[in-house]
Amino acid sequence: MARIVPVKGKIPPMKDLTAENITENVVIINNQCSHARGQYIFERLVHHLHEFAREVRLSSEEWMTGIEFLTKVGQISDDLRHEMILLSDTLGLSILVDSIDHPRIDTVTEGTVLGPFHTHDAPDTELGYTLHGDPNATRLFVLCTVKDTQGKPIAGVQADVWEGDSHGFYDVQNPNRQAADGRAVLHTDSEGRLFFNAIIPVPYPIPDDGPVGAMLRFLNRHPNRPGHIHFMLYKNGYDKLTTALYPRGDPFETSDPVFGVKESLIVDLSEVDEAIAAKYDVKKGTALLKYDFVLATDEEAGAMREKKAVEAAKKLNRKMKMQNGLPIPDLD
Amino acid sequence: MARIVPVKGKIPPMKDLTAENITENVVIINNQCSHARGQYIFERLVHHLHEFAREVRLSSEEWMTGIEFLTKVGQISDDLRHEMILLSDTLGLSILVDSIDHPRIDTVTEGTVLGPFHTHDAPDTELGYTLHGDPNATRLFVLCTVKDTQGKPIAGVQADVWEGDSHGFYDVQNPNRQAADGRAVLHTDSEGRLFFNAIIPVPYPIPDDGPVGAMLRFLNRHPNRPGHIHFMLYKNGYDKLTTALYPRGDPFETSDPVFGVKESLIVDLSEVDEAIAAKYDVKKGTALLKYDFVLATDEEAGAMREKKAVEAAKKLNRKMKMQNGLPIPDLD
Repeated sequence: MARIVPVKGKIPPMKDLTAENITENVVIINNQCSHARGQYIFERLVHHLHEFAREVRLSSEEWMTGIEFLTKVGQISDDLRHEMILLSDTLGLSILVDSIDHPRIDTVTEGTVLGPFHTHDAPDTELGYTLHGDPNATRLFVLCTVKDTQGKPIAGVQADVWEGDSHGFYDVQNPNRQAADGRAVLHTDSEGRLFFNAIIPVPYPIPDDGPVGAMLRFLNRHPNRPGHIHFMLYKNGYDKLTTALYPRGDPFETSDPVFGVKESLIVDLSEVDEAIAAKYDVKKGTALLKYDFVLATDEEAGAMREKKAVEAAKKLNRKMKMQNGLPIPDLD
Repeated sequence: MARIVPVKGKIPPMKDLTAENITENVVIINNQCSHARGQYIFERLVHHLHEFAREVRLSSEEWMTGIEFLTKVGQISDDLRHEMILLSDTLGLSILVDSIDHPRIDTVTEGTVLGPFHTHDAPDTELGYTLHGDPNATRLFVLCTVKDTQGKPIAGVQADVWEGDSHGFYDVQNPNRQAADGRAVLHTDSEGRLFFNAIIPVPYPIPDDGPVGAMLRFLNRHPNRPGHIHFMLYKNGYDKLTTALYPRGDPFETSDPVFGVKESLIVDLSEVDEAIAAKYDVKKGTALLKYDFVLATDEEAGAMREKKAVEAAKKLNRKMKMQNGLPIPDLD
């Protein structure tokens, strides 16, 4: 008996579990959790996990297929390959969580999926930086502003920008990667400007040699993402914006495997004119991507998030309260 | 563009996804799947995964915690450690799937969780075999019968039996494991008898040094399983029974972390009397576990499974049909 882990307190008794009463019993035992938000998350997780199995009448064989699939997704993952994120992306969960965490505010730029290719080793550098040395790429000058909902430029916004190369490969997909390439950390100036030299992004397949690729093939889905450039914009006091811009007309614009495309994030490219060429030291005629980002303040985003959380709680027909901006059952 | 994966057929277009319309869009794109059962499973999976996130208003930080947790569960798994099964067990999913796949038939022995310790290398041996050499254990003679629902003995049932040692360790938990220990494959005789020499099983903690252990601690749950002996009984024409027997009075009888205990599987131990001692060559006074297993035929189990599936389909308010004994939407 020496190996038994000591038990504190009284445990709610249960026994004789059936398909009909297992869910309530698991919830009762999980409710020993002293973290109110965690307790609520596990309650809903267990509810939906069990309802799923009950509705489809999940067989033992299908269950084992799922167990082995999820195990493989974990096993193929490492510091540079994030297969579990890819799974979440391809099931539409990532874009949903982004929509929940950053609910739509009319004038504010929409977010989209982070994707599995963001890193923390991009060079912290100056406006006007050139992301890629790639000689095969078509050059693109990116000229943006970052403003608040009142139209006031925001200075000192940190902008992580990243994109693939002319073959649609991110640097982390290069097994001989020595340092960051195709990515940078920039900072808006006093006019809220954000500009850098990029390449016209091309469509590329998400990594499809692992279990998620096999899942897509089973579902008769293709893995090709439309070309895009990633942006992550953050400054204290503002709601962090993770988004991407998609040049219009990509063949996969309406069938993105990770559900990232939004109409407001599709951009028409133009060309660098004489004035811009002179001002930013770029060759006239270079492809040009112009975009004006709008950030919400933490207060604006928080208020909208709470409004949506209250609406969701109403649908559950139970009394909820907010704790650190997130809903938990109100048991008082 | 050379890397793009060729696309066959017409893809249903989508764009401008929001928290409100993402689910239907993911379902539409997944419905390209040509496997009817797979299509249905993914439909309900996506529905519940998204409803879960919407109901709790899952934050990006909580999502990342989940992604990292599931990745770790996969990474710690190998041929002998099945952490993903343990996760399923501790969330009550395993026992639920068993209940769905082997629905209760009044006279038939109930199933319970397989657990992560079954192997395929147990010796195929004779009735009367001694499972353990363990000198510290209290000996237990196990004397069972296997019958059908008409009370007729079933000969030639293959029985996998396995249990931990006197410290509650299974052989696969021994890093120096050379061969199977504490497990055997036996076969019932013409009287349907199944007997072997075991030890009185002791409670033990499920492996709690990994992510599932951390989850249990977060939930203020203990990891101690009540002592039990595992049985897997199968013969062509009969519904495979995966179950376990629990000697009565264990301190963790009503708080099993994997929800495996059922009243009908709790047994009162007695002692080997003179008649049994003589008949089976066991020492008089040895602890005795007697149990009569009842197996359903494939037909009996299949009929009950279908009945339950039809009931579940009714709750969904949609027209369903059965395919290979499992429900799929009836689209005709």
